[in-house]
Amino acid sequence: MSQQPERIWTAALLIIGDEILSGRTQDANLAYLAKWLGVQGIRLKEVRVVADEMDAIGDAVKALSAGFDYLFTTGGIGPTHDDITVDAIAAALGVPVIVHPDAQAILAGYYGDKLTDARLRMARTPEGATLIENPRTKAPGIRVGNIFIMAGVPIITQGMLAALDGKLQGGAPVLSRTVAAWTQESTAAATLAAVEKAHEGAQIGSYPFWREGKTGANFVIRATDTAVLASVAEALMAGLREIGVEPVDGEL
Amino acid sequence: MSQQPERIWTAALLIIGDEILSGRTQDANLAYLAKWLGVQGIRLKEVRVVADEMDAIGDAVKALSAGFDYLFTTGGIGPTHDDITVDAIAAALGVPVIVHPDAQAILAGYYGDKLTDARLRMARTPEGATLIENPRTKAPGIRVGNIFIMAGVPIITQGMLAALDGKLQGGAPVLSRTVAAWTQESTAAATLAAVEKAHEGAQIGSYPFWREGKTGANFVIRATDTAVLASVAEALMAGLREIGVEPVDGEL
Repeated sequence: MSQQPERIWTAALLIIGDEILSGRTQDANLAYLAKWLGVQGIRLKEVRVVADEMDAIGDAVKALSAGFDYLFTTGGIGPTHDDITVDAIAAALGVPVIVHPDAQAILAGYYGDKLTDARLRMARTPEGATLIENPRTKAPGIRVGNIFIMAGVPIITQGMLAALDGKLQGGAPVLSRTVAAWTQESTAAATLAAVEKAHEGAQIGSYPFWREGKTGANFVIRATDTAVLASVAEALMAGLREIGVEPVDGEL
Repeated sequence: MSQQPERIWTAALLIIGDEILSGRTQDANLAYLAKWLGVQGIRLKEVRVVADEMDAIGDAVKALSAGFDYLFTTGGIGPTHDDITVDAIAAALGVPVIVHPDAQAILAGYYGDKLTDARLRMARTPEGATLIENPRTKAPGIRVGNIFIMAGVPIITQGMLAALDGKLQGGAPVLSRTVAAWTQESTAAATLAAVEKAHEGAQIGSYPFWREGKTGANFVIRATDTAVLASVAEALMAGLREIGVEPVDGEL
Protein backbone atom coordinates (compact mmCIF):
# COMPACT_ATOMS: atom_id res chain seq x y z
CA MET A 1 0.00 0.00 0.00
CA SER A 2 1.54 3.29 -1.02
CA GLN A 3 0.52 6.42 0.80
CA GLN A 4 -0.46 9.49 -1.16
CA PRO A 5 2.07 12.24 -0.40
CA GLU A 6 0.21 14.76 1.70
CA ARG A 7 -0.53 18.22 0.31
CA ILE A 8 1.48 20.80 2.19
CA TRP A 9 -0.35 24.04 2.97
CA THR A 10 1.82 27.14 2.95
CA ALA A 11 1.61 30.73 4.12
CA ALA A 12 3.61 33.93 3.94
CA LEU A 13 3.64 36.91 6.26
CA LEU A 14 4.07 40.51 5.13
CA ILE A 15 5.03 42.87 7.95
CA ILE A 16 4.30 46.47 6.99
CA GLY A 17 5.91 49.31 8.88
CA ASP A 18 8.76 51.80 9.01
CA GLU A 19 8.97 51.24 12.77
CA ILE A 20 10.17 47.66 12.23
CA LEU A 21 12.66 48.60 9.49
CA SER A 22 14.12 51.42 11.58
CA GLY A 23 14.78 49.04 14.45
CA ARG A 24 12.58 51.07 16.77
CA THR A 25 10.05 48.30 17.29
CA GLN A 26 10.85 44.59 17.66
CA ASP A 27 8.39 42.48 15.68
CA ALA A 28 6.46 40.08 17.88
CA ASN A 29 3.97 38.74 15.34
CA LEU A 30 6.22 36.44 13.29
CA ALA A 31 6.88 33.85 15.99
CA TYR A 32 3.29 33.93 17.26
CA LEU A 33 1.84 33.51 13.77
CA ALA A 34 4.33 30.74 12.93
CA LYS A 35 3.25 28.69 15.93
CA TRP A 36 -0.44 29.41 15.35
CA LEU A 37 -0.10 28.31 11.72
CA GLY A 38 1.70 25.15 12.85
CA VAL A 39 -1.34 24.18 14.91
CA GLN A 40 -3.59 24.76 11.86
CA GLY A 41 -1.37 22.46 9.77
CA ILE A 42 -0.02 25.32 7.66
CA ARG A 43 3.69 26.09 7.22
CA LEU A 44 5.05 29.61 7.28
CA LYS A 45 7.45 29.63 4.30
CA GLU A 46 8.43 33.26 3.78
CA VAL A 47 8.27 36.57 5.60
CA ARG A 48 8.87 40.03 4.20
CA VAL A 49 9.12 43.37 5.95
CA VAL A 50 8.48 46.46 3.82
CA ALA A 51 8.11 50.20 4.44
CA ASP A 52 4.85 52.15 4.53
CA GLU A 53 5.02 52.73 0.76
CA MET A 54 2.33 51.88 -1.81
CA ASP A 55 4.64 50.20 -4.35
CA ALA A 56 6.66 48.23 -1.82
CA ILE A 57 3.48 46.85 -0.25
CA GLY A 58 1.80 46.20 -3.59
CA ASP A 59 4.74 44.32 -5.12
CA ALA A 60 5.11 42.10 -2.06
CA VAL A 61 1.37 41.39 -1.90
CA LYS A 62 1.28 40.30 -5.54
CA ALA A 63 4.30 38.00 -5.19
CA LEU A 64 3.32 36.43 -1.87
CA SER A 65 -0.41 35.97 -2.48
CA ALA A 66 0.43 34.21 -5.76
CA GLY A 67 3.26 32.12 -4.29
CA PHE A 68 1.59 30.67 -1.21
CA ASP A 69 -1.81 29.31 -0.13
CA TYR A 70 -2.33 32.12 2.36
CA LEU A 71 -0.88 35.58 2.89
CA PHE A 72 -1.13 37.35 6.23
CA THR A 73 -0.25 41.03 6.57
CA THR A 74 0.33 42.93 9.79
CA GLY A 75 0.43 46.69 10.29
CA GLY A 76 -0.83 49.82 8.60
CA ILE A 77 -4.58 49.49 9.19
CA GLY A 78 -4.98 52.16 11.87
CA PRO A 79 -6.52 55.63 11.53
CA THR A 80 -3.45 57.73 10.69
CA HIS A 81 -1.95 59.04 7.45
CA ASP A 82 0.79 56.37 7.40
CA ASP A 83 -1.82 53.57 7.47
CA ILE A 84 -2.00 52.76 3.76
CA THR A 85 -2.19 48.97 3.76
CA VAL A 86 -5.81 48.77 2.55
CA ASP A 87 -5.16 51.24 -0.28
CA ALA A 88 -2.00 49.44 -1.38
CA ILE A 89 -3.62 45.98 -1.36
CA ALA A 90 -6.70 47.21 -3.24
CA ALA A 91 -4.44 48.82 -5.85
CA ALA A 92 -2.42 45.59 -6.16
CA LEU A 93 -5.64 43.61 -6.67
CA GLY A 94 -7.06 46.20 -9.08
CA VAL A 95 -10.22 46.77 -7.04
CA PRO A 96 -11.57 49.97 -5.49
CA VAL A 97 -11.54 50.78 -1.78
CA ILE A 98 -15.02 50.95 -0.26
CA VAL A 99 -16.41 51.75 3.19
CA HIS A 100 -17.55 48.30 4.32
CA PRO A 101 -21.08 48.65 5.78
CA ASP A 102 -20.57 45.99 8.48
CA ALA A 103 -17.27 47.58 9.56
CA GLN A 104 -18.93 50.99 9.66
CA ALA A 105 -21.71 49.57 11.84
CA ILE A 106 -19.17 48.01 14.23
CA LEU A 107 -17.26 51.30 14.57
CA ALA A 108 -20.47 53.31 14.95
CA GLY A 109 -21.52 51.01 17.78
CA TYR A 110 -18.12 51.44 19.47
CA TYR A 111 -17.42 55.17 18.97
CA GLY A 112 -21.02 56.45 18.84
CA ASP A 113 -21.08 60.13 17.84
CA LYS A 114 -17.27 60.24 18.11
CA LEU A 115 -16.91 58.34 14.82
CA THR A 116 -14.65 60.92 13.12
CA ASP A 117 -13.38 60.72 9.56
CA ALA A 118 -10.04 59.42 10.85
CA ARG A 119 -11.76 56.56 12.70
CA LEU A 120 -14.00 55.83 9.73
CA ARG A 121 -10.78 55.10 7.78
CA MET A 122 -10.71 51.84 9.73
CA ALA A 123 -13.96 50.75 8.02
CA ARG A 124 -12.37 50.94 4.56
CA THR A 125 -11.67 47.63 2.77
CA PRO A 126 -10.85 46.46 -0.73
CA GLU A 127 -14.12 45.72 -2.56
CA GLY A 128 -15.20 42.10 -2.11
CA ALA A 129 -13.67 41.67 1.35
CA THR A 130 -15.11 40.05 4.44
CA LEU A 131 -14.26 41.03 8.02
CA ILE A 132 -12.16 39.36 10.72
CA GLU A 133 -13.39 39.96 14.26
CA ASN A 134 -11.24 42.12 16.53
CA PRO A 135 -12.31 41.31 20.10
CA ARG A 136 -9.83 43.82 21.57
CA THR A 137 -10.38 47.21 19.88
CA LYS A 138 -13.29 46.45 17.50
CA ALA A 139 -11.81 47.89 14.25
CA PRO A 140 -11.91 44.64 12.25
CA GLY A 141 -9.29 42.76 10.25
CA ILE A 142 -10.02 42.06 6.59
CA ARG A 143 -10.04 38.96 4.41
CA VAL A 144 -9.89 39.39 0.67
CA GLY A 145 -9.19 36.31 -1.46
CA ASN A 146 -6.35 34.44 0.23
CA ILE A 147 -5.10 37.59 1.97
CA PHE A 148 -5.68 38.21 5.68
CA ILE A 149 -5.10 41.85 6.62
CA MET A 150 -4.38 42.21 10.32
CA ALA A 151 -3.32 44.80 12.87
CA GLY A 152 0.32 45.36 13.82
CA VAL A 153 -0.15 45.63 17.59
CA PRO A 154 0.48 42.07 18.83
CA ILE A 155 -2.39 41.81 21.29
CA ILE A 156 -4.83 42.86 18.56
CA THR A 157 -3.26 40.52 15.99
CA GLN A 158 -3.54 37.63 18.43
CA GLY A 159 -7.23 38.36 19.00
CA MET A 160 -7.83 38.29 15.24
CA LEU A 161 -5.99 34.97 14.90
CA ALA A 162 -8.09 33.52 17.71
CA ALA A 163 -11.16 34.51 15.69
CA LEU A 164 -9.76 32.49 12.74
CA ASP A 165 -8.86 29.43 14.82
CA GLY A 166 -9.78 26.20 13.05
CA LYS A 167 -11.36 28.03 10.10
CA LEU A 168 -8.55 27.66 7.55
CA GLN A 169 -7.94 24.53 5.54
CA GLY A 170 -4.60 22.93 6.43
CA GLY A 171 -2.75 19.63 6.52
CA ALA A 172 -0.97 17.67 9.21
CA PRO A 173 0.67 19.86 11.85
CA VAL A 174 4.47 19.79 11.93
CA LEU A 175 5.66 18.24 15.18
CA SER A 176 9.08 18.69 16.68
CA ARG A 177 11.31 16.98 19.21
CA THR A 178 14.70 18.12 20.47
CA VAL A 179 17.86 16.16 21.24
CA ALA A 180 20.76 18.15 22.68
CA ALA A 181 24.37 17.77 23.74
CA TRP A 182 27.23 19.70 25.29
CA THR A 183 29.33 19.64 22.15
CA GLN A 184 30.37 21.89 19.29
CA GLU A 185 27.89 21.44 16.46
CA SER A 186 30.79 20.82 14.08
CA THR A 187 31.61 17.66 16.05
CA ALA A 188 28.10 16.33 15.40
CA ALA A 189 27.79 17.58 11.81
CA ALA A 190 28.44 14.29 9.99
CA THR A 191 26.11 12.39 12.34
CA LEU A 192 23.29 14.87 11.82
CA ALA A 193 23.60 14.70 8.06
CA ALA A 194 23.64 10.89 8.01
CA VAL A 195 20.64 10.51 10.31
CA GLU A 196 18.58 13.07 8.38
CA LYS A 197 19.41 11.39 5.08
CA ALA A 198 18.31 8.00 6.44
CA HIS A 199 14.86 9.25 7.49
CA GLU A 200 12.63 10.57 4.74
CA GLY A 201 10.13 13.21 5.80
CA ALA A 202 12.22 14.41 8.73
CA GLN A 203 14.41 17.48 9.03
CA ILE A 204 17.06 18.19 11.65
CA GLY A 205 18.08 21.74 12.48
CA SER A 206 21.21 22.45 14.51
CA TYR A 207 21.21 25.43 16.90
CA PRO A 208 24.46 26.08 18.75
CA PHE A 209 24.73 28.09 21.95
CA TRP A 210 27.34 29.22 24.46
CA ARG A 211 26.46 29.13 28.11
CA GLU A 212 28.42 29.14 31.38
CA GLY A 213 31.64 29.08 29.35
CA LYS A 214 30.58 25.88 27.58
CA THR A 215 29.51 25.08 24.03
CA GLY A 216 26.33 23.16 23.32
CA ALA A 217 23.79 22.58 20.57
CA ASN A 218 20.11 21.75 20.29
CA PHE A 219 19.19 19.46 17.43
CA VAL A 220 15.54 20.03 16.52
CA ILE A 221 13.84 17.21 14.61
CA ARG A 222 10.73 18.13 12.63
CA ALA A 223 8.24 15.73 11.03
CA THR A 224 4.48 15.32 10.75
CA ASP A 225 4.53 11.77 12.16
CA THR A 226 5.29 10.97 15.82
CA ALA A 227 6.70 7.54 14.93
CA VAL A 228 9.19 9.17 12.55
CA LEU A 229 10.14 11.72 15.22
CA ALA A 230 10.80 8.94 17.74
CA SER A 231 12.89 6.85 15.38
CA VAL A 232 14.99 9.87 14.30
CA ALA A 233 15.56 10.81 17.95
CA GLU A 234 16.69 7.25 18.77
CA ALA A 235 19.01 7.12 15.75
CA LEU A 236 20.46 10.52 16.54
CA MET A 237 21.15 9.68 20.19
CA ALA A 238 22.75 6.39 19.17
CA GLY A 239 24.86 8.17 16.56
CA LEU A 240 26.05 10.78 19.05
CA ARG A 241 27.08 8.08 21.55
CA GLU A 242 29.07 6.38 18.76
CA ILE A 243 31.23 9.49 18.37
CA GLY A 244 31.70 9.83 22.12
CA VAL A 245 29.10 12.58 22.71
CA GLU A 246 26.55 11.99 25.50
CA PRO A 247 23.12 13.06 24.23
CA VAL A 248 20.31 14.66 26.24
CA ASP A 249 16.75 13.61 25.34
CA GLY A 250 15.23 17.09 25.30
CA GLU A 251 16.28 20.70 25.01
CA LEU A 252 19.28 22.27 26.72
CA MET B 1 21.14 78.39 -4.21
CA SER B 2 19.42 75.10 -4.78
CA GLN B 3 20.63 72.07 -2.90
CA GLN B 4 21.34 68.85 -4.77
CA PRO B 5 18.93 66.19 -3.46
CA GLU B 6 21.06 63.79 -1.48
CA ARG B 7 21.59 60.25 -2.75
CA ILE B 8 19.88 57.79 -0.43
CA TRP B 9 21.82 54.58 0.27
CA THR B 10 19.68 51.51 0.80
CA ALA B 11 20.09 48.00 2.16
CA ALA B 12 18.09 44.80 2.47
CA LEU B 13 18.43 41.97 4.99
CA LEU B 14 17.84 38.31 4.16
CA ILE B 15 17.35 36.15 7.25
CA ILE B 16 17.94 32.49 6.42
CA GLY B 17 16.65 29.78 8.71
CA ASP B 18 13.87 27.31 9.44
CA GLU B 19 14.23 28.14 13.13
CA ILE B 20 12.94 31.67 12.55
CA LEU B 21 10.07 30.55 10.28
CA SER B 22 8.94 27.88 12.75
CA GLY B 23 8.71 30.45 15.53
CA ARG B 24 11.25 28.56 17.61
CA THR B 25 13.82 31.38 17.56
CA GLN B 26 13.06 35.08 17.81
CA ASP B 27 15.18 37.04 15.35
CA ALA B 28 17.42 39.58 17.07
CA ASN B 29 19.49 40.74 14.10
CA LEU B 30 16.94 42.91 12.27
CA ALA B 31 16.68 45.69 14.86
CA TYR B 32 20.42 45.67 15.58
CA LEU B 33 21.34 45.84 11.88
CA ALA B 34 18.73 48.56 11.25
CA LYS B 35 20.24 50.79 13.91
CA TRP B 36 23.81 50.02 12.84
CA LEU B 37 22.91 50.89 9.22
CA GLY B 38 21.29 54.12 10.39
CA VAL B 39 24.59 55.21 11.92
CA GLN B 40 26.36 54.42 8.61
CA GLY B 41 23.84 56.60 6.73
CA ILE B 42 22.21 53.60 5.04
CA ARG B 43 18.48 52.82 5.21
CA LEU B 44 17.15 49.33 5.70
CA LYS B 45 14.34 49.14 3.14
CA GLU B 46 13.31 45.48 3.00
CA VAL B 47 13.74 42.29 5.01
CA ARG B 48 12.94 38.75 3.93
CA VAL B 49 12.99 35.53 5.92
CA VAL B 50 13.31 32.30 3.93
CA ALA B 51 13.79 28.61 4.73
CA ASP B 52 17.05 26.66 4.45
CA GLU B 53 16.30 25.84 0.79
CA MET B 54 18.57 26.51 -2.21
CA ASP B 55 15.90 28.02 -4.47
CA ALA B 56 14.28 30.16 -1.79
CA ILE B 57 17.65 31.63 -0.82
CA GLY B 58 18.80 32.07 -4.42
CA ASP B 59 15.64 33.84 -5.60
CA ALA B 60 15.73 36.25 -2.67
CA VAL B 61 19.46 36.96 -3.13
CA LYS B 62 18.99 37.81 -6.79
CA ALA B 63 16.03 40.14 -6.14
CA LEU B 64 17.50 41.92 -3.13
CA SER B 65 21.11 42.33 -4.32
CA ALA B 66 19.76 43.88 -7.54
CA GLY B 67 17.18 46.06 -5.81
CA PHE B 68 19.30 47.70 -3.12
CA ASP B 69 22.81 49.12 -2.66
CA TYR B 70 23.72 46.48 -0.09
CA LEU B 71 22.38 43.06 0.87
CA PHE B 72 23.14 41.51 4.25
CA THR B 73 22.34 37.87 4.95
CA THR B 74 22.25 36.18 8.35
CA GLY B 75 22.25 32.46 9.10
CA GLY B 76 23.26 29.22 7.46
CA ILE B 77 27.06 29.58 7.44
CA GLY B 78 27.89 27.08 10.18
CA PRO B 79 29.38 23.60 9.85
CA THR B 80 26.22 21.45 9.62
CA HIS B 81 24.24 19.96 6.73
CA ASP B 82 21.52 22.62 6.93
CA ASP B 83 24.10 25.41 6.44
CA ILE B 84 23.71 25.98 2.68
CA THR B 85 23.87 29.76 2.41
CA VAL B 86 27.26 29.85 0.65
CA ASP B 87 26.21 27.22 -1.87
CA ALA B 88 22.90 28.96 -2.58
CA ILE B 89 24.49 32.40 -3.05
CA ALA B 90 27.26 31.04 -5.29
CA ALA B 91 24.64 29.29 -7.41
CA ALA B 92 22.58 32.48 -7.62
CA LEU B 93 25.66 34.42 -8.75
CA GLY B 94 26.72 31.67 -11.18
CA VAL B 95 30.16 31.23 -9.61
CA PRO B 96 31.76 28.11 -8.08
CA VAL B 97 32.28 27.55 -4.35
CA ILE B 98 35.96 27.47 -3.38
CA VAL B 99 37.85 26.89 -0.14
CA HIS B 100 39.13 30.39 0.60
CA PRO B 101 42.83 30.14 1.50
CA ASP B 102 42.72 32.96 4.08
CA ALA B 103 39.66 31.45 5.74
CA GLN B 104 41.33 28.04 5.81
CA ALA B 105 44.40 29.61 7.44
CA ILE B 106 42.23 31.32 10.09
CA LEU B 107 40.42 28.06 10.92
CA ALA B 108 43.68 26.06 10.93
CA GLY B 109 45.13 28.56 13.41
CA TYR B 110 42.05 28.24 15.61
CA TYR B 111 41.30 24.50 15.48
CA GLY B 112 44.86 23.17 14.88
CA ASP B 113 44.76 19.43 14.14
CA LYS B 114 41.04 19.37 15.01
CA LEU B 115 40.16 21.05 11.70
CA THR B 116 37.68 18.40 10.54
CA ASP B 117 35.87 18.36 7.18
CA ALA B 118 32.77 19.76 8.89
CA ARG B 119 34.74 22.70 10.27
CA LEU B 120 36.47 23.25 6.95
CA ARG B 121 33.00 23.85 5.47
CA MET B 122 33.21 27.24 7.19
CA ALA B 123 36.16 28.21 4.94
CA ARG B 124 34.05 27.80 1.79
CA THR B 125 33.09 30.98 -0.10
CA PRO B 126 31.73 31.93 -3.49
CA GLU B 127 34.68 32.54 -5.85
CA GLY B 128 35.80 36.18 -5.80
CA ALA B 129 34.82 36.83 -2.19
CA THR B 130 36.70 38.65 0.56
CA LEU B 131 36.40 37.90 4.27
CA ILE B 132 34.73 39.74 7.15
CA GLU B 133 36.49 39.36 10.48
CA ASN B 134 34.72 37.36 13.19
CA PRO B 135 36.31 38.39 16.49
CA ARG B 136 34.13 36.01 18.49
CA THR B 137 34.42 32.52 16.96
CA LYS B 138 36.92 33.09 14.11
CA ALA B 139 34.98 31.47 11.22
CA PRO B 140 34.74 34.58 9.03
CA GLY B 141 31.83 36.33 7.33
CA ILE B 142 32.00 36.79 3.58
CA ARG B 143 31.67 39.75 1.23
CA VAL B 144 30.97 39.08 -2.43
CA GLY B 145 29.93 42.02 -4.62
CA ASN B 146 27.37 44.01 -2.65
CA ILE B 147 26.41 40.96 -0.54
CA PHE B 148 27.56 40.59 3.08
CA ILE B 149 27.14 37.03 4.33
CA MET B 150 27.00 36.92 8.11
CA ALA B 151 26.34 34.51 10.95
CA GLY B 152 22.90 34.01 12.49
CA VAL B 153 23.94 33.98 16.16
CA PRO B 154 23.48 37.63 17.22
CA ILE B 155 26.70 38.01 19.21
CA ILE B 156 28.71 36.80 16.20
CA THR B 157 26.74 38.97 13.77
CA GLN B 158 27.37 42.00 15.95
CA GLY B 159 31.10 41.31 16.00
CA MET B 160 31.13 41.12 12.20
CA LEU B 161 29.24 44.43 11.93
CA ALA B 162 31.74 46.04 14.28
CA ALA B 163 34.48 44.92 11.89
CA LEU B 164 32.63 46.75 9.06
CA ASP B 165 32.04 49.94 11.05
CA GLY B 166 32.66 53.05 8.95
CA LYS B 167 33.80 51.02 5.93
CA LEU B 168 30.63 51.22 3.81
CA GLN B 169 29.71 54.22 1.72
CA GLY B 170 26.55 55.90 2.98
CA GLY B 171 24.71 59.21 3.14
CA ALA B 172 23.36 61.34 5.94
CA PRO B 173 22.13 59.33 8.93
CA VAL B 174 18.39 59.43 9.59
CA LEU B 175 17.70 61.16 12.88
CA SER B 176 14.55 60.84 14.92
CA ARG B 177 12.72 62.70 17.63
CA THR B 178 9.56 61.68 19.45
CA VAL B 179 6.56 63.67 20.58
CA ALA B 180 3.93 61.79 22.56
CA ALA B 181 0.51 62.26 24.13
CA TRP B 182 -2.05 60.44 26.21
CA THR B 183 -4.61 60.31 23.44
CA GLN B 184 -6.09 57.93 20.91
CA GLU B 185 -4.06 58.18 17.72
CA SER B 186 -7.28 58.67 15.76
CA THR B 187 -7.81 61.94 17.64
CA ALA B 188 -4.44 63.21 16.38
CA ALA B 189 -4.66 61.74 12.87
CA ALA B 190 -5.62 64.93 10.97
CA THR B 191 -2.97 66.96 12.83
CA LEU B 192 -0.24 64.42 12.04
CA ALA B 193 -1.13 64.38 8.34
CA ALA B 194 -1.19 68.18 8.07
CA VAL B 195 2.14 68.67 9.87
CA GLU B 196 3.89 65.99 7.81
CA LYS B 197 2.54 67.47 4.57
CA ALA B 198 3.84 70.93 5.55
CA HIS B 199 7.43 69.72 6.14
CA GLU B 200 9.22 68.23 3.16
CA GLY B 201 11.85 65.64 3.99
CA ALA B 202 10.23 64.62 7.27
CA GLN B 203 8.12 61.60 8.09
CA ILE B 204 5.91 61.07 11.12
CA GLY B 205 5.03 57.58 12.31
CA SER B 206 2.26 57.01 14.84
CA TYR B 207 2.62 54.18 17.37
CA PRO B 208 -0.29 53.66 19.73
CA PHE B 209 -0.04 51.85 23.05
CA TRP B 210 -2.24 50.89 26.00
CA ARG B 211 -0.81 51.17 29.46
CA GLU B 212 -2.26 51.39 32.98
CA GLY B 213 -5.74 51.34 31.47
CA LYS B 214 -4.99 54.42 29.36
CA THR B 215 -4.48 54.99 25.65
CA GLY B 216 -1.45 56.86 24.34
CA ALA B 217 0.63 57.25 21.21
CA ASN B 218 4.22 58.05 20.33
CA PHE B 219 4.67 60.16 17.22
CA VAL B 220 8.14 59.51 15.80
CA ILE B 221 9.52 62.20 13.50
CA ARG B 222 12.31 61.14 11.11
CA ALA B 223 14.52 63.43 9.02
CA THR B 224 18.20 63.81 8.15
CA ASP B 225 18.35 67.43 9.33
CA THR B 226 18.13 68.46 13.01
CA ALA B 227 16.60 71.83 12.14
CA VAL B 228 13.78 70.08 10.26
CA LEU B 229 13.27 67.70 13.19
CA ALA B 230 12.98 70.62 15.61
CA SER B 231 10.56 72.57 13.46
CA VAL B 232 8.32 69.51 12.91
CA ALA B 233 8.32 68.79 16.65
CA GLU B 234 7.30 72.41 17.41
CA ALA B 235 4.57 72.37 14.77
CA LEU B 236 3.24 69.03 15.99
CA MET B 237 3.12 70.10 19.64
CA ALA B 238 1.36 73.34 18.68
CA GLY B 239 -1.10 71.39 16.51
CA LEU B 240 -1.89 68.96 19.33
CA ARG B 241 -2.53 71.81 21.79
CA GLU B 242 -4.93 73.34 19.24
CA ILE B 243 -7.12 70.23 19.37
CA GLY B 244 -6.99 70.14 23.17
CA VAL B 245 -4.34 67.39 23.51
CA GLU B 246 -1.41 68.16 25.85
CA PRO B 247 1.80 66.99 24.11
CA VAL B 248 4.89 65.48 25.77
CA ASP B 249 8.27 66.47 24.28
CA GLY B 250 9.79 62.99 24.22
CA GLU B 251 8.71 59.35 24.31
CA LEU B 252 6.03 57.92 26.56
